[in-house]
Amino acid sequence: MLPNNTTQKKQSPIHRIEPGNWWIGMKSSALQLLVYGPQITHARVSIDYPGISLQKLTKVENPNYLFIDLLIDDAAQAGNVPLNFTIKGVHICTYDYPLLNREPHSAVRKGFDSGDAIYLIMPDRFANGNPSSNHVDGMREIADRAAPYGRHGGDLQGILSHLDYIQEMGYTALWLTPVLENNQPSASYHGYAITDFYKIDARLGSNEEFKLLTRECNKRGIKMIMDMVFNHCGSHHWWMNDLPMFSWVNQWPEFTRSNNRLGIISDPYASDADKQLLVKGWFDTAMPDLNLENPLLLTYLIQNSIWWIEYAGLQGIRMDTYPYPDKRSMAIWAKRILNEYPNFNLVGECWINEAAKLCYWQKDFPGKGGYNSHLPSLMDFPLQEAIKYAFNEAEGWTTGMARLYNALANDHLYPKPMNLMVFADNHDEGRIFHLLGNDIAKLKMALTYAATIRGILQIYYGTELLMDGNGWDGHDKIRLDFPGGWDSDTVNAFTLKGRTREQNNIFNHIKKLLNYRKQSEALKYGKTLHFIPEEGIYVYFRYTDNQTVMVILNNNTKGSKKVHSMRFREVMGGFTHGTNIISGRKLIDLKNINTKAKTAMVLELK
Amino acid sequence: MLPNNTTQKKQSPIHRIEPGNWWIGMKSSALQLLVYGPQITHARVSIDYPGISLQKLTKVENPNYLFIDLLIDDAAQAGNVPLNFTIKGVHICTYDYPLLNREPHSAVRKGFDSGDAIYLIMPDRFANGNPSSNHVDGMREIADRAAPYGRHGGDLQGILSHLDYIQEMGYTALWLTPVLENNQPSASYHGYAITDFYKIDARLGSNEEFKLLTRECNKRGIKMIMDMVFNHCGSHHWWMNDLPMFSWVNQWPEFTRSNNRLGIISDPYASDADKQLLVKGWFDTAMPDLNLENPLLLTYLIQNSIWWIEYAGLQGIRMDTYPYPDKRSMAIWAKRILNEYPNFNLVGECWINEAAKLCYWQKDFPGKGGYNSHLPSLMDFPLQEAIKYAFNEAEGWTTGMARLYNALANDHLYPKPMNLMVFADNHDEGRIFHLLGNDIAKLKMALTYAATIRGILQIYYGTELLMDGNGWDGHDKIRLDFPGGWDSDTVNAFTLKGRTREQNNIFNHIKKLLNYRKQSEALKYGKTLHFIPEEGIYVYFRYTDNQTVMVILNNNTKGSKKVHSMRFREVMGGFTHGTNIISGRKLIDLKNINTKAKTAMVLELK
Repeated sequence: MLPNNTTQKKQSPIHRIEPGNWWIGMKSSALQLLVYGPQITHARVSIDYPGISLQKLTKVENPNYLFIDLLIDDAAQAGNVPLNFTIKGVHICTYDYPLLNREPHSAVRKGFDSGDAIYLIMPDRFANGNPSSNHVDGMREIADRAAPYGRHGGDLQGILSHLDYIQEMGYTALWLTPVLENNQPSASYHGYAITDFYKIDARLGSNEEFKLLTRECNKRGIKMIMDMVFNHCGSHHWWMNDLPMFSWVNQWPEFTRSNNRLGIISDPYASDADKQLLVKGWFDTAMPDLNLENPLLLTYLIQNSIWWIEYAGLQGIRMDTYPYPDKRSMAIWAKRILNEYPNFNLVGECWINEAAKLCYWQKDFPGKGGYNSHLPSLMDFPLQEAIKYAFNEAEGWTTGMARLYNALANDHLYPKPMNLMVFADNHDEGRIFHLLGNDIAKLKMALTYAATIRGILQIYYGTELLMDGNGWDGHDKIRLDFPGGWDSDTVNAFTLKGRTREQNNIFNHIKKLLNYRKQSEALKYGKTLHFIPEEGIYVYFRYTDNQTVMVILNNNTKGSKKVHSMRFREVMGGFTHGTNIISGRKLIDLKNINTKAKTAMVLELK
Repeated sequence: MLPNNTTQKKQSPIHRIEPGNWWIGMKSSALQLLVYGPQITHARVSIDYPGISLQKLTKVENPNYLFIDLLIDDAAQAGNVPLNFTIKGVHICTYDYPLLNREPHSAVRKGFDSGDAIYLIMPDRFANGNPSSNHVDGMREIADRAAPYGRHGGDLQGILSHLDYIQEMGYTALWLTPVLENNQPSASYHGYAITDFYKIDARLGSNEEFKLLTRECNKRGIKMIMDMVFNHCGSHHWWMNDLPMFSWVNQWPEFTRSNNRLGIISDPYASDADKQLLVKGWFDTAMPDLNLENPLLLTYLIQNSIWWIEYAGLQGIRMDTYPYPDKRSMAIWAKRILNEYPNFNLVGECWINEAAKLCYWQKDFPGKGGYNSHLPSLMDFPLQEAIKYAFNEAEGWTTGMARLYNALANDHLYPKPMNLMVFADNHDEGRIFHLLGNDIAKLKMALTYAATIRGILQIYYGTELLMDGNGWDGHDKIRLDFPGGWDSDTVNAFTLKGRTREQNNIFNHIKKLLNYRKQSEALKYGKTLHFIPEEGIYVYFRYTDNQTVMVILNNNTKGSKKVHSMRFREVMGGFTHGTNIISGRKLIDLKNINTKAKTAMVLELK
């Protein structure tokens, strides 16, 4: 019960100590504990434990908080560290603080990368594996599938029960929208209004279940990416009733919304007024805006990330609303995480559709003023913008295939384009099938593109079922329940028979793509070479010394066209035949390749 | 007659030596002469002149060429350097090569910069100051005003005669489209098909007249920017009948056009095939594509630039089709020019509408692979794109004023945004008045924006006369004759009375803007601060320690709105009143500034 043990000894004067435990052998020897209890500010603390030294006690405005800085040196062994609290010389309690051994190879864990295909799931909407948790005492919302913005009852057990399904399609990573407690009175299903940073939402499961799910995923070669939110918390977060400090959240005389102009941060001419509003304005009335310039809060959140990586065994973090908090604080966070886990990965949601502005946010971008975000991975919104339009448009100088071509050409701005996350849609946007006019041929092209172009691949759950929804009529339309995830469902799309012919068409397309990708060094880590689209046909290559994959996107609306290899001889020279990795068919003659309208072809050259 | 003296001693075996003269006291002591004459390859050369040493003779495929490398050291004095040519020991001729003294302060001449307002003129279409040169013996085209793509007879004398007009409006620099010889059989008026790099087109004037015009401009505080073209020459260039080397131009089995995809050069994934086609493909059938990878040609062109700077006394060069030739060669050019003239300026036409791709071309952009263009100034096509749309659009998240705001925010990509050239149109694009729907209010807004935002200002001749033309129906529509430039014109728009009321409205608007700008340190060299547009109103400030200028663009279509200074207090604090620099009116109260729809306001704050 250690991990959930943040409320140990409730009868004692200590209501919470966070993080609830720590580990020996971390690269950073510092640990700062948040202690919460009535009038705890008056306490003195003493520790007598080998290798542990008390560095500092920090009092804040609110007497119910005390921050303890510890140093854990190499001599420290795992065990319970007794923290002795006294007030005016009187012993008031001893808190046994757990110090654990780390899992082997924890520090060198490998994060997600361009070799991965990520399945994005909103847990409340995926599968209800444990109906008994639909209603949990003390939680403000209970499941109600009829309510578009209500909780529907999906949970971690539901995901655990369907790992075969996910694995069959070829996914190698999961990104779950936030699973931490959201004990909000309404719309708590989405998870972005966290009310306890150390606790899985009881309606989704427990900390132990999250750890178990991660372990089971890892066994199957599936990485776990945790969705975190530092810009804000839920209005019903436990500390909102008794804030440690006025400056813990960004305070305004009245509700003041952020201007959401993310380009401000890199803009050399932006006004302080606009910057302040972006960073300190609130995202939503129900989401108090955390002030990461407060060093105590920042340390709390950094340690929280490390705690979840170490506790649950994560392979990645997806950070929500990345450019909204103070950029220097976020850079400190990213740097600290990567200092502890040099092979880990962090992807930030910088919702910026222009590469000219997005590039600023990737680690090692040579920005003016010397700012370095230290954020390794970005969600590639500019490329997504191109995907949304390219397959619908007539071919022109900047439209159709030229849009994809031009978007990719901006990669010179990114320090590491391979660490961009490619996606056609996610839980915040219209379903790609909808955006492509419910056209299966276009959808297959878009998915083929996303799966074969450079970068980390992310696909949203339900894409394989042709889920529809435009995203503007309401978020519920793009966050539908997975059919078969609930016992009462009449259709079970987790099974071949439960899917329509069209759904199986896409399911199998994704399955082919991902399972091929999984073993293709060229698609995962290869170089990219592309050619100016001509006559509506875009040809690019992914290649290593040992493998060359040719992708042909024919975006014409009718007929068929020959692609002549002569133009591509700098990369096709030496190859005589190929295999279509979707159809499995051999191609004997590469000189004139016949391509059909609105079709993507992926050829491994031999 | 020295400067035109490239055909000295035609009776001699030497038909040309280029450059036709050089100077002592240059930073670079190297000089390479191109010698052209029948079988001159067989000649040996000897020189006996203090401070001059012969470094190397270079023979090429064509026996009619010889390249002589000289070193000019500090001991050299101005004078005629006898070059003695012998063949098999027999003296065939002595060529007196002129070595001149430089003008004082030549090396430290100040180039154009953000303090300048440039008037762009197409000389053939501006004013016919010397009708006798309409027809010149030996030149293939004669003036014919009725022919849309013919020569109309404008010339350098026509410009010289109207410097008062240009000066009255407040311009501080001239950019003339190319004035070098274009002895082409047709469409030679535009000047971009050069047939002699050392000779002003005789129909425009002589080398001496160009030098005189430059001197007269300089006296009036007007800089001269010469338009140069290195990517190609005219098909009737003298060397095209007797090329020095096969590799002098990019050769193809049949006419092969460039793909014009300028983004290729910075694209990390571009194919060699596409790159070759961009760089080596021809711009037009009548324009052989010069191969700047040929070091003899590159040296020829570099020396040509230096020769014109030194001879005519230029303050700048505008380089046509900048990304088309080999990028390394162009960088060598730029670096050499700036080495000789560290305060000079070069602006490149990189016709790329995306800042994400254009930024690559500015000097010191930290590009991948370490490429540095050394090109200080770029024409700001992305900002022009924004200007074309912003005043026509309804206000939205990315449209209307937000378009200007977003475009400017990309300045973080440019090493030196102040060295970008701001323009609303030029000789290759639809007239801005046309693009803004012939709406005078919009035109005034666009011009006010261009004149007050950071960067070098360029305005196209005839804008002040509300010249119209969409650019797609033909270039002639955007290159109309200036009314009054020809004796036979019934209207003389060079005079107040010759202009309509609407024309005088715009003429006076430009005059107000430019003459204010001329003495405003804030507009010329100040910092920029802008605020997110709200309710269709975009507010920005240009400021120095001593001057603050506030610009308000109200892009609403009707009514008026108050602008409250409270939001701008970080920059307006301390100011109590202001002067509208267009109307001259004082503004007593800055707290609530009344602004009218579709109006730009420029206030100097006090």
